[in-house]
Amino acid sequence: MMKLYYAKGTCALASHIALEEAGAEYSTVRVNFAVSEQRSPEYLAINPKGRVPTLLTDRGILTETPAMLAFIAQSFPKARLAPLDDPFSFAEVQAFNSYLCSTVHVAHAHRMRGTRWADDQGAIEAMKRKVPETMAACFDMIESKMFRGPWVTGESYTICDPYLFTIGQWLEGDGVDPARFPKVNAHRERMSERAAVRKVLAEEQG
Amino acid sequence: MMKLYYAKGTCALASHIALEEAGAEYSTVRVNFAVSEQRSPEYLAINPKGRVPTLLTDRGILTETPAMLAFIAQSFPKARLAPLDDPFSFAEVQAFNSYLCSTVHVAHAHRMRGTRWADDQGAIEAMKRKVPETMAACFDMIESKMFRGPWVTGESYTICDPYLFTIGQWLEGDGVDPARFPKVNAHRERMSERAAVRKVLAEEQG
Repeated sequence: MMKLYYAKGTCALASHIALEEAGAEYSTVRVNFAVSEQRSPEYLAINPKGRVPTLLTDRGILTETPAMLAFIAQSFPKARLAPLDDPFSFAEVQAFNSYLCSTVHVAHAHRMRGTRWADDQGAIEAMKRKVPETMAACFDMIESKMFRGPWVTGESYTICDPYLFTIGQWLEGDGVDPARFPKVNAHRERMSERAAVRKVLAEEQG
Repeated sequence: MMKLYYAKGTCALASHIALEEAGAEYSTVRVNFAVSEQRSPEYLAINPKGRVPTLLTDRGILTETPAMLAFIAQSFPKARLAPLDDPFSFAEVQAFNSYLCSTVHVAHAHRMRGTRWADDQGAIEAMKRKVPETMAACFDMIESKMFRGPWVTGESYTICDPYLFTIGQWLEGDGVDPARFPKVNAHRERMSERAAVRKVLAEEQG
């Protein structure tokens, strides 16, 4: 049985929802960021990057949300969480998730994790100030150029959907009004109604 | 026939090498960053993100290096550029590439692209100063925890190899001595000897 290490309010939510949608048998372990549990020797022995999510499988650990999401889709093909038989469509799914990971999540991280990229307190504050602008620019791109509807890639629900939902949860905290992005905002509502999403949110927020 | 849009010295090199290793029929278009061609209306009509690489296929465009690399591996299975029949091993390949994209490339980008994340000139200088430290930390992680050898994931050459090679090319410019990472450094030598790598470098540097 797989085991997902997650922390509240993090991108691990995407993999958590995907596992639930896939009908996977899995258990979860909550990592407590409030006491920096992700930097504890015990956790670093599991994932030396000191981040979440980590997925413990019978073959070893997996990290990095886009890779974990594709793994879940490929491991549970009956759940049809990605167009597995079409390399081009699969690549479109992966490109969307890669953008979320390497551009949107990174933009967001400059609000709370500025110490990753500068030591100077003034610089950290300057990064924080720009987050509403960079996050809004990312969601403008998603809304106007990338999102197809009703799901991210069109008619089929895929591993892009829980990931967009997850990162979209951060908009208010980043000082961006989600109502500026009507299609993405309606997607958030649509996601919130899914049984898998309700179940996972109830667990993570409990 | 596919067409790869690339710019010199960028992460597009990874996809360029992968196309060559795959034996793909493709042509290339060089985008001139020195005159901000990536922000021209003509280029933005192809890739609204204004970045490279872009891969133009007969089905449309693809972007984002990890997605493109997986697409190339899946489209040319005979080249065996990824463990396509094993979701766990494929996920390990993808996790490595996702780390390069969302952590290592991002660390590097704070040297030249600080304006993405702050407006203040002092903050941009502060980001620049930290790049040698963050890039060294990333390559320490790769050297000590991730790289298996002789190729990234072990005995088989995969789409991880041209991507690691590509980002490793930036170390000197980022103020990090590659000799600090003996396994990665030997990998760079090994890569440099491959016919596909020589051919692609000759074109990009020509």
